[in-house]
Amino acid sequence: MTSLPNSSILCESRRVSVIGGGKVGSTLAQRIFEKNLADVVLLDIVEGMPQGIALDLMEAQPIERNDRQMIGTNDYADTAGSDIVVITAGIPRKPGMTRDDLLKINAKIVVEASEKAIAQSPNAIFILVSNPLDVVTYLSWKTTQLPPSRVMGMAGVLDSARFQTFIAMELGVSPRDVNALVLGGHGDLMVPLPRYSTVNGIPITELMDAVTIERLVDRTRNGGGEIVGLMKTGGAYFAPASSTCLMVEAIINNQSRQLPASAYLQGEYGLNDIFIGVPIQLGGSGVEKVLEINLTDAEREALHTSAESVRANIQQAST
Amino acid sequence: MTSLPNSSILCESRRVSVIGGGKVGSTLAQRIFEKNLADVVLLDIVEGMPQGIALDLMEAQPIERNDRQMIGTNDYADTAGSDIVVITAGIPRKPGMTRDDLLKINAKIVVEASEKAIAQSPNAIFILVSNPLDVVTYLSWKTTQLPPSRVMGMAGVLDSARFQTFIAMELGVSPRDVNALVLGGHGDLMVPLPRYSTVNGIPITELMDAVTIERLVDRTRNGGGEIVGLMKTGGAYFAPASSTCLMVEAIINNQSRQLPASAYLQGEYGLNDIFIGVPIQLGGSGVEKVLEINLTDAEREALHTSAESVRANIQQAST
Amino acid sequence: MTSLPNSSILCESRRVSVIGGGKVGSTLAQRIFEKNLADVVLLDIVEGMPQGIALDLMEAQPIERNDRQMIGTNDYADTAGSDIVVITAGIPRKPGMTRDDLLKINAKIVVEASEKAIAQSPNAIFILVSNPLDVVTYLSWKTTQLPPSRVMGMAGVLDSARFQTFIAMELGVSPRDVNALVLGGHGDLMVPLPRYSTVNGIPITELMDAVTIERLVDRTRNGGGEIVGLMKTGGAYFAPASSTCLMVEAIINNQSRQLPASAYLQGEYGLNDIFIGVPIQLGGSGVEKVLEINLTDAEREALHTSAESVRANIQQAST
Amino acid sequence: MTSLPNSSILCESRRVSVIGGGKVGSTLAQRIFEKNLADVVLLDIVEGMPQGIALDLMEAQPIERNDRQMIGTNDYADTAGSDIVVITAGIPRKPGMTRDDLLKINAKIVVEASEKAIAQSPNAIFILVSNPLDVVTYLSWKTTQLPPSRVMGMAGVLDSARFQTFIAMELGVSPRDVNALVLGGHGDLMVPLPRYSTVNGIPITELMDAVTIERLVDRTRNGGGEIVGLMKTGGAYFAPASSTCLMVEAIINNQSRQLPASAYLQGEYGLNDIFIGVPIQLGGSGVEKVLEINLTDAEREALHTSAESVRANIQQAST
Repeated sequence: MTSLPNSSILCESRRVSVIGGGKVGSTLAQRIFEKNLADVVLLDIVEGMPQGIALDLMEAQPIERNDRQMIGTNDYADTAGSDIVVITAGIPRKPGMTRDDLLKINAKIVVEASEKAIAQSPNAIFILVSNPLDVVTYLSWKTTQLPPSRVMGMAGVLDSARFQTFIAMELGVSPRDVNALVLGGHGDLMVPLPRYSTVNGIPITELMDAVTIERLVDRTRNGGGEIVGLMKTGGAYFAPASSTCLMVEAIINNQSRQLPASAYLQGEYGLNDIFIGVPIQLGGSGVEKVLEINLTDAEREALHTSAESVRANIQQAST
Repeated sequence: MTSLPNSSILCESRRVSVIGGGKVGSTLAQRIFEKNLADVVLLDIVEGMPQGIALDLMEAQPIERNDRQMIGTNDYADTAGSDIVVITAGIPRKPGMTRDDLLKINAKIVVEASEKAIAQSPNAIFILVSNPLDVVTYLSWKTTQLPPSRVMGMAGVLDSARFQTFIAMELGVSPRDVNALVLGGHGDLMVPLPRYSTVNGIPITELMDAVTIERLVDRTRNGGGEIVGLMKTGGAYFAPASSTCLMVEAIINNQSRQLPASAYLQGEYGLNDIFIGVPIQLGGSGVEKVLEINLTDAEREALHTSAESVRANIQQAST
Repeated sequence: MTSLPNSSILCESRRVSVIGGGKVGSTLAQRIFEKNLADVVLLDIVEGMPQGIALDLMEAQPIERNDRQMIGTNDYADTAGSDIVVITAGIPRKPGMTRDDLLKINAKIVVEASEKAIAQSPNAIFILVSNPLDVVTYLSWKTTQLPPSRVMGMAGVLDSARFQTFIAMELGVSPRDVNALVLGGHGDLMVPLPRYSTVNGIPITELMDAVTIERLVDRTRNGGGEIVGLMKTGGAYFAPASSTCLMVEAIINNQSRQLPASAYLQGEYGLNDIFIGVPIQLGGSGVEKVLEINLTDAEREALHTSAESVRANIQQAST
Repeated sequence: MTSLPNSSILCESRRVSVIGGGKVGSTLAQRIFEKNLADVVLLDIVEGMPQGIALDLMEAQPIERNDRQMIGTNDYADTAGSDIVVITAGIPRKPGMTRDDLLKINAKIVVEASEKAIAQSPNAIFILVSNPLDVVTYLSWKTTQLPPSRVMGMAGVLDSARFQTFIAMELGVSPRDVNALVLGGHGDLMVPLPRYSTVNGIPITELMDAVTIERLVDRTRNGGGEIVGLMKTGGAYFAPASSTCLMVEAIINNQSRQLPASAYLQGEYGLNDIFIGVPIQLGGSGVEKVLEINLTDAEREALHTSAESVRANIQQAST
């Protein structure tokens, strides 16, 4: 072989670091990698495990035909220069455990991970996935001192996907044509918005009666718990990983997507200095906009109740 | 090599015949073939041309990596046993020509094609794409004597896609999050429904003022003409082929999608014995449902005006 | 909504049952489901777990946009009418454990699973993934009494993918352009064939020296063990699931692919009444052909040594 | 809506300019755009046509769900800052016309296009598609004065894809498993290499007799003419566009693929200062390597004969 003098590489791959190699983290790594979105660094404190997952995914590459590189590591130095950092680390939610039981332990884990990750990748965009979601997103933002547009939490996409699934099942239509919007904190106080949930543009309030809608809303609110109840030794990971990957894709491909996510509020909806689920526009620079949509008094009140609970937990986690 | 005694093939490919190998037909054949939806038969009266296109697409297969077979032909016998027949044949719309100018010529072409195709594939589902759309769909239904669930026209998906595109461009958001609904006849009397057009579930009436919406509606109504005006020697084909392929996919993959299409009405919206653009549910057995959504008096009136025009043209084509 | 009298569904989805909901089984279920290949039934003896995985994957569907259905179950009755049955059940290989240590336990598990599955789906094609691979494939064939073309084991695709990966890494080329062929039993006695391993058609023997090739061959032979050594509490699952999914796809899409798999020999390569890794042609009716390629004396001897080991284990498992 | 102060976009899209909006150019634009590889600028001298194609493709975007932007233009200023420039401009090959008849006209068209394009995008990588391929590639390289690693011609991928297709058809196997290698000039003097053409690594010389191979080689050599003979009013465009898109993808995704292309030789194969079809490694910086594989005396002689013909044409085009 004769080597030509190489000029510089035209198109550097983007780099996404996933902190936490449990089921959500490793499935997220798989999705980002196999959708060809970015090189992936999977970091976990368990020795060998992230390395094994990375090698296993590399060995699937001749079949899945993606072009990116993946490494597993226990060392934050390997995450240097990441464009996006996703934090999935934390104790998994066990049966009977509420999301808020996890508060203190996971707050500590996320703050440490944020400190170590931001030191390596000072310009990254951070996406939080650990629970309790809105609380740890706030703490990560405080820790990294990033502008609010570069820190966000994944919950609304997952809650909305579940609501969409239940609507599609109920009506016997393709989930492709269903749109659903869930705001508020991730947890028992989430705020599904049936008025803004549609099938090919038609509000579901025209397609189902109120009792059915209420049943689907309840199932959505308990969506995480339903899976834990079935799995017993763990929680959902396929749909959470898909939901997070969709946010990564919106950033990498600069899509300017409108979707619900836990974002920093500065007066919108009458709320200040808090991260909570609201509709945002997400693109190549992170959170491009927080959208303020019309809420009824009841919806607005539910959002404020949800916010108070988040705020109390932030307080508690910081003591 | 040693051959084992073959048992029967597990999974027969579906077969879609595309009648008319012009730009819409050949691009549609490409899309169905390369999305791996079905074996494709491309039929045209021009000798050699459909054969050349089929061979060219087969030679792209080692690169595009799809698994289906494609043949080009001038003989309806080769379309025998088709699951779906798509008719794109007809004189293309030229600059300055209205859709209805094409009426008599294309009516004759479509009736002949329908006769020959149904003789070979008596159980096929028919999708009409030729113009004037609603008129030739009616005539094809009459000719084939198929149940109304197995004949439909493609127009609403294209008109809606154009409206979606213009909304996405106006708001600077991803077209993925935009839903738009356009009913009525394909042509100057189409009925876009801004109330049912949404961005991630939020009606565009909350996101734009009335003047902007009216401008986008007008551009949508003139969407076909805008392309003809630019191209001069022909009309749009990429988006029409995508729109038709989406309907083929809904049937082949039994998706039960909700989308607008020209469907046979039997009292819905106060209309009878006519094909016109309405929301339907489309799946493995064809038109599963005609959806009757709430219309304002003005919208309903526009739909009736559109229907009268279609009816007049059916009359004229039959003289 | 007005319902039209539905005619029959045009295109029934295919049904694949995956027996065993561990990491390989659940990742395989994900791949088949999300690649839109078939409806999936995931069966495991653990209660709730396969149901939880199925629901989690269904809730990812609005994001991943596939059209199939998935159910989890503990009851073989739900697998009725499967087109393909994949058996992944068995005790996972632990660190320090050879594949053959698993022999007796897994033989019993696979025979039971085969009995129950064939009772529900007498015309299915069976793909075995459990270890020791060639042994349990033979036992499953005996149990189901299916023709040899309808039973096969997945090993060669995985072993070859690993060899391809190592070649691509060594040469710094895309794994897309690397082809590798590994025959023989899955285990320490596999038979990689460098002469038939190529980069864009060029044999690797022209591209690397013998020492390098030997190093890559050794790493391939120890490929499963390398992952277990890293993961400690389990083995590879992403690449095994990809490899199995490729075989499922070859059948569902009737691809007539040439790939190595554990197939029943009736005189080919001088071997009789044994399942062992050889190149086959795989399509819609299962194993369409066993290919007999030219082997050197050394390669042929290695294949026979491998076969003797498989035969001894079949003997041992049946005592 | 509240706008956050936007930080910079994380991931700028790549930009590919396609010069020439005929069937090859517009189908190539479609493939690059819909595979989400880059923003596309389609330039043609015909007014309105590239603009119409671009708008048509943008209107397909809500259905095809890609994220890139596309514009059509008649002005080279709009191609500024392109990462890759593909030149497809030229008079199409008509029935009865040899590739070399096109020489003088197309040489002039390509030199002009190269001058105008390099002025706007001095760091672009150039891919030539116009005919006679090897001649215009040389002339474009001379015109742009780019390093040899940044200029190349597309022919070998197409010729190889055709050879692969014919092999797959002959053997009844999936084209996915067939690899074929065609070197030399694009035209009657191309040099197919059956020894390096394989099915899953097995040379076709083990799978077919010499007469069959010779027949497939002849059909490959006449592959372009076969399509022109069928189409009569034009030539192939789907497979040429796929072949070119594969090269664009190799660069954009930095794949380091090994494939045949017209590349600048500096002593390899005993040839100097000429562009001709040889195996290269193609990645993010363009031509990373020219591979020198073992040729028989006959193959080497055929390559030299092919090179002499190219050289004569370069001479003739420059007079």
